[in-house]
Amino acid sequence: MFSVDTYQRRRATLRHQVKNGVLLFLGNIDNPINFEHNTYPFRQDSTFLYYFGIQQAGLAALIDLDEQRTIVFGDELTMDQIVWMGRQETLREKCAGAGVGEVLPFGLLTTYLSEAVNKGRVIHYLPPYQAYNKILLHELLKQPITSLTGSVSFIEAVVAQRSIKEEQELEEIEKAVEVSVEMHLLALRLARPGMREREITNAIQHFAADRGCPLSYPPIVTVHGEILHNAYQQNHLREGQLLLNDSGAETALGYAADLTRTFPVSKRFTSRQREIYDIVHMAFQRANSLLRPGIPFKEVHLHACESLVEGLISIGLMKGDPKEAVSHHAHTLFFQCGLGHMMGLDVHDMEDLGEQYVGYTSDEPKDTATFGLKSLRLGRNLQTGFVLTVEPGIYFIPELIDMWQSEHKLQEFINYDKLRDYRDFGGVRIEDNFVITDDGSRRLGPELIHTADDIEHYKAQHA
Amino acid sequence: MFSVDTYQRRRATLRHQVKNGVLLFLGNIDNPINFEHNTYPFRQDSTFLYYFGIQQAGLAALIDLDEQRTIVFGDELTMDQIVWMGRQETLREKCAGAGVGEVLPFGLLTTYLSEAVNKGRVIHYLPPYQAYNKILLHELLKQPITSLTGSVSFIEAVVAQRSIKEEQELEEIEKAVEVSVEMHLLALRLARPGMREREITNAIQHFAADRGCPLSYPPIVTVHGEILHNAYQQNHLREGQLLLNDSGAETALGYAADLTRTFPVSKRFTSRQREIYDIVHMAFQRANSLLRPGIPFKEVHLHACESLVEGLISIGLMKGDPKEAVSHHAHTLFFQCGLGHMMGLDVHDMEDLGEQYVGYTSDEPKDTATFGLKSLRLGRNLQTGFVLTVEPGIYFIPELIDMWQSEHKLQEFINYDKLRDYRDFGGVRIEDNFVITDDGSRRLGPELIHTADDIEHYKAQHA
Repeated sequence: MFSVDTYQRRRATLRHQVKNGVLLFLGNIDNPINFEHNTYPFRQDSTFLYYFGIQQAGLAALIDLDEQRTIVFGDELTMDQIVWMGRQETLREKCAGAGVGEVLPFGLLTTYLSEAVNKGRVIHYLPPYQAYNKILLHELLKQPITSLTGSVSFIEAVVAQRSIKEEQELEEIEKAVEVSVEMHLLALRLARPGMREREITNAIQHFAADRGCPLSYPPIVTVHGEILHNAYQQNHLREGQLLLNDSGAETALGYAADLTRTFPVSKRFTSRQREIYDIVHMAFQRANSLLRPGIPFKEVHLHACESLVEGLISIGLMKGDPKEAVSHHAHTLFFQCGLGHMMGLDVHDMEDLGEQYVGYTSDEPKDTATFGLKSLRLGRNLQTGFVLTVEPGIYFIPELIDMWQSEHKLQEFINYDKLRDYRDFGGVRIEDNFVITDDGSRRLGPELIHTADDIEHYKAQHA
Repeated sequence: MFSVDTYQRRRATLRHQVKNGVLLFLGNIDNPINFEHNTYPFRQDSTFLYYFGIQQAGLAALIDLDEQRTIVFGDELTMDQIVWMGRQETLREKCAGAGVGEVLPFGLLTTYLSEAVNKGRVIHYLPPYQAYNKILLHELLKQPITSLTGSVSFIEAVVAQRSIKEEQELEEIEKAVEVSVEMHLLALRLARPGMREREITNAIQHFAADRGCPLSYPPIVTVHGEILHNAYQQNHLREGQLLLNDSGAETALGYAADLTRTFPVSKRFTSRQREIYDIVHMAFQRANSLLRPGIPFKEVHLHACESLVEGLISIGLMKGDPKEAVSHHAHTLFFQCGLGHMMGLDVHDMEDLGEQYVGYTSDEPKDTATFGLKSLRLGRNLQTGFVLTVEPGIYFIPELIDMWQSEHKLQEFINYDKLRDYRDFGGVRIEDNFVITDDGSRRLGPELIHTADDIEHYKAQHA
């Protein structure tokens, strides 16, 4: 946990933002795998972590703005549970560490909220993403499950606060990046023809776990880099292929990192692979150079797209004017997704609270219709203290190429003939994590090698 | 998956048992970690696996006994999803592998069930353990969430069928045991003073993952073997301590193993550790020798308890007549839990369906009041084809000893004075998996060393 005044200060800021009513925070429980008591590793809800820091299943908390009380609801271990699970720090002790003196049995939450509702007071809550918290809210608030969309003023206050990272949060994220950099170097050293993708995943997971870090999301480790969310990782690595590794660690306090590198299974890139890699790398650098307070991230995204198009024109896969190509979204045949997203206690930070609040504003809402832009999670003006990923890529997706070609789509910008040779190329992505600073941005954590030369050099050294 | 006729045959057997109404099977979805799309590794519901074998999130199935239809409800990937997740075997293809020709979009499940309900037909369902399936059932059946306890005739038919393992299921369980035995040998080789418990867990998890096996439950790897469900694994192993390793793998088809060994961190047991170990080992062998069709497992449990008491008397920790001590539950100061449980597609097989159906019968219900027996998951008469664990142990729990001693509890059987020296001893458990055969039982999978001599010998060889 951070220091006790961290949590007190964060809650004080929040209280000033929302002003009245009751702010309700629901923690997570242990999620069942295949029966109630066989459970996945526990992960506390990130907003609960942010304001209370207590990593224990089965808690709720509230800040009563009208009556100026802050209460954690949860149950101490019974003697039976101590026999089974061992003596542990009590809940009361944990709450003291978060600066909360009032601890009540979980069962009293219903009573407290019913009384508040009866007095005509507003219960503010956040959009539930765990089904058990939907049921709990349904029971607490007597509302249909489908109508539990959250309280906008509460959501906006939390997003405003969590978006600007404190110095100690940046340090945590840098710790996460540090472990992740080591994971990526390990993958670079391990990868060789004949291995299965899954073996790389298992090794980096083991490495992170030994450092006390779970992974911040299910890693994508694949020779099919063009499959953006590839869960199947049974392929054998083959000579001449590229391996894409998108993986990151999470610190004990819950802060995420999210890095991607793409590198040859064998020692060297082929000349074609290096061409595509360098194009992605150029776009990556272009994007990074633009990061600064005030610029809309959507603009950074479009600049990166233009850089990709310039590169693709230079090798004959695209044609025409780069700006015009981007304005027609012709780049989305190769770069179907967004340039990046906010990152913090969640790898897609605050995704549970709603992209319309986190990545966009009501003045500049998301384009939810256009292929490409509809997958851009972050579009708003950047501010000092935002932490985000930059992750351009080029992906040759056979199904998409076939579809576009059959429609002769944007053929003024795409050389479909030449593209035939790249059908089985796969995909390349490069991704790092940045914090926006007053005068630009800073890469978080130690630098992980990212030029084609450096990668080949590292592979040669560790062959 | 098993062969198509496996699933057809299993469903045919079930149809004959329940006879009319609609049998509803809800599959699992991807459980969220900290936001909806950041998810834990998928695990299909075990009963769904048993009758349909399809490992895909977001499915339901039904067997309409009145109209003689078997339908899987689920959605094929959209083009957008193929772009993101890659082309995969279609749902229709997977269903063909389970012998199901009728596949409908998931959204039609509500329609189908409403029509069935309107016709006055019974919808049979199993007790939901996933909150999202509670919500789904609540919406489908228009019943309050708290009243969704399941259909007894359906539960009983499933339990009767899943309790008797087929030959091919035994082969799967033996594969799980085989990987688990290797995990345990790895732990024996790795453990040394200075390591943390968690590092052993990480290494065996990595080992299993490389063989395509998740773990069948969160491993308990601890120098505090007396803590029965120990999640905290940050202790450093020290010279002279015992390490308890309770862990098992699950095969790709979902079958579990569940093994425990307790061994010295350093090369040799102390003489006191060996005494306790040998007592547990005697009880383990006594229990195994009694396994046969027709014997109530509760009786096997009580024989094992008696064996433990005999041993504890021999070293002066208990006194009096062993049988009498057991009848007064005096052994529960040292052995607080049950001797074993059913095992199969779940490590506690079918625990979601209800212990009263799986481990007990209405004629011989569970003793839910008595400390010790209330934790015995299996009490009923054994039958050929049952698969179960045998896992006696001795646990010195300081909190429990203090409580009993302060009450002078059962002091005619307990030497509290002598016990003082064992306060910090920890705990010992030995656990293997057995199938009940016509003439007794058979240990499943390759034998894992279990005598104190063998363990010391193995440690010496791999030092």
